[in-house]
Amino acid sequence: MLGKYLDLVKEKAPLIDNITNFITANDCANILLAVGASPIMADNPKEIEDIIAIASGLNINMGVISDSSLEAMFIGGKKANELNKPVLLDPVAAGATRYRTEQANKLLEEVKFSVIRGNISEIKALFLGENTTRGVDAAEEISEENLDSVVQFAKEAARTSGSKIFITGKIDVVSDGEKSYALKNGVDEMAHITGSGCMLSAFITAFIAADDSLESLVAGGCMMGLAGEKALETMKKNEAGNSSYRNFLIDEIYKMTADSLDKGAKYELK
Amino acid sequence: MLGKYLDLVKEKAPLIDNITNFITANDCANILLAVGASPIMADNPKEIEDIIAIASGLNINMGVISDSSLEAMFIGGKKANELNKPVLLDPVAAGATRYRTEQANKLLEEVKFSVIRGNISEIKALFLGENTTRGVDAAEEISEENLDSVVQFAKEAARTSGSKIFITGKIDVVSDGEKSYALKNGVDEMAHITGSGCMLSAFITAFIAADDSLESLVAGGCMMGLAGEKALETMKKNEAGNSSYRNFLIDEIYKMTADSLDKGAKYELK
Amino acid sequence: MLGKYLDLVKEKAPLIDNITNFITANDCANILLAVGASPIMADNPKEIEDIIAIASGLNINMGVISDSSLEAMFIGGKKANELNKPVLLDPVAAGATRYRTEQANKLLEEVKFSVIRGNISEIKALFLGENTTRGVDAAEEISEENLDSVVQFAKEAARTSGSKIFITGKIDVVSDGEKSYALKNGVDEMAHITGSGCMLSAFITAFIAADDSLESLVAGGCMMGLAGEKALETMKKNEAGNSSYRNFLIDEIYKMTADSLDKGAKYELK
Repeated sequence: MLGKYLDLVKEKAPLIDNITNFITANDCANILLAVGASPIMADNPKEIEDIIAIASGLNINMGVISDSSLEAMFIGGKKANELNKPVLLDPVAAGATRYRTEQANKLLEEVKFSVIRGNISEIKALFLGENTTRGVDAAEEISEENLDSVVQFAKEAARTSGSKIFITGKIDVVSDGEKSYALKNGVDEMAHITGSGCMLSAFITAFIAADDSLESLVAGGCMMGLAGEKALETMKKNEAGNSSYRNFLIDEIYKMTADSLDKGAKYELK
Repeated sequence: MLGKYLDLVKEKAPLIDNITNFITANDCANILLAVGASPIMADNPKEIEDIIAIASGLNINMGVISDSSLEAMFIGGKKANELNKPVLLDPVAAGATRYRTEQANKLLEEVKFSVIRGNISEIKALFLGENTTRGVDAAEEISEENLDSVVQFAKEAARTSGSKIFITGKIDVVSDGEKSYALKNGVDEMAHITGSGCMLSAFITAFIAADDSLESLVAGGCMMGLAGEKALETMKKNEAGNSSYRNFLIDEIYKMTADSLDKGAKYELK
Repeated sequence: MLGKYLDLVKEKAPLIDNITNFITANDCANILLAVGASPIMADNPKEIEDIIAIASGLNINMGVISDSSLEAMFIGGKKANELNKPVLLDPVAAGATRYRTEQANKLLEEVKFSVIRGNISEIKALFLGENTTRGVDAAEEISEENLDSVVQFAKEAARTSGSKIFITGKIDVVSDGEKSYALKNGVDEMAHITGSGCMLSAFITAFIAADDSLESLVAGGCMMGLAGEKALETMKKNEAGNSSYRNFLIDEIYKMTADSLDKGAKYELK
């Protein structure tokens, strides 16, 4: 049952540093607060080591990369490795530009990631060298039809990298190279707001900081999708649109209990 | 009828790159998603050319200018010109500081803009050299009384620059140097949130990316104002304030159809 | 009575420049607009002097410090001193990293601040050299039990620095070294959103720009707490969570009148 991983997050209230983009940083901070974690968004190379020393986990998001934030990603990632604190990589739009793909690959070489979280195009850009990313959106979807092949790909990517792989789409696929899960919560509406991917990455970093297991990741992933489902009901009830939906999504994270997560989570071992 | 331009945006789902400020970037991304476009906010000079290659339009917003983002504006603008992709300039607070006015003028010299969108003070700072901008607000309003002279000014600025000119105020004026329109949708409430100008610029970039005509611009401008009117009703009904209003505004863009735009748009040829 | 200080803000509509972080900049701008002030977030060293020349006050927030924004803090702070415009310092997370504490202390040496606003850990890091800050959160709380000693500490810090000291917690303490006030509005919910501290700092900068007195600060502090109380009612009524709460908080600022501030403010002279 996944609820216990949510309880662990609330109990440990991990301090998560996020080296992330300015577009969705506010939502990432609020979703971490919603689940009971404590966010910090320090991205200055001059202080990143001190920050990592007090943090419980690091979320590296490549949404917007400046020379300075990129430097912080390398320094912070290595420091976290040294201190055995889990690091997540969100290779936003990898495959869309040469520079971005190069830097993501360089991070993969120099930092050991607990989790790599992206859409199928981004993860393929890293592991297969395919450049099919259209901006920040994936070029293909994950459905029941191609699920087995995506699971197989995730498993291989996990083995190659030594990281847990979290591929998001209509169905999410999570694998550590041995075990894999298909996560089936979530609604299309989540793709109609900016930052649902960024928020997920920040959010699940709290889960791996509390318990660095595949099942804790699955808990975080299902919880995000379930919150998305519940938020859609609120949106419809209020005759609202995507901007309010963003607030409702975070609100549902704020309100969710271990029990409601256990009741609503839809996932299966593959 | 303007509704067809909205349908064109939804049909083409243009990928819009925004080199913009960190204050309103999230709202700009969400309003682009609300209308069915796909936002990206890449502003690193090292990858901007690759981004422009896959984008359908570029929104340059001078709200906050760093050395790096400014460099990206020049490189990205020129690349978009080379590839015949429309570029919009939002010269935020031009006239408020020498540096800002200089850089805006330099952009005007080196990049060909499809549209220049600002308040009357900003546009006058660019074309008349007047420095009357108070921070980010215009020093004067556009009313029925001075409408004809503003239209005349917009027409001349359009001829001088070779760009379509979009001046926002209580009444908006849009001109390509030949034809001009007065747009009469909108409510004062829109000036009580940060980023309504930034959002408009991002939003209409999607319209010119879908169809680079004066009428498509008019459609985008009326739609924004009409959404503002509808959002005010929701705000009053909920006894809410400006922060919720911002969400309601984007929500209304999300919900609007070609038909409701046609019914609510208020504009006239001048 | 405090309401008159709110009326002064609305009457003078001060233009406030904010050199601040990208995480909460949007909320800071919207809360300034909500109270009738005019926000600008210019942080480029190349134009900061021109901005200060037209602004009525400067809010320096160390949430995220880049080399460039830090340079702007020094130049802008000194220029504001020269022009006799009030400057506020929010030493976010001072004590959490060496670099941050050093730079905050350097700012204290080179710039004269009207107000220093932080939680108890941040203010102790500056004046006692204690490093107990856990990320952006305070390591201790202010309660009726330790109130007198916090008041004493605030008084001494005010005398040492020549600045008004505003320490936030469950109870806020405000002192100019002679008079001190305990502010008792507010709810725990405010700590469950990102940026409630940043928003407060931006918000009270408008109050000191309108009237640079201890009582004007108290008015701003009580108003923020009172808005937080009212927003909690709306949150409960709507069965919402922290993300909507953020909007409701700013909405309440937008709706508050001098009369409702006078009725709801809870403070006492210490």
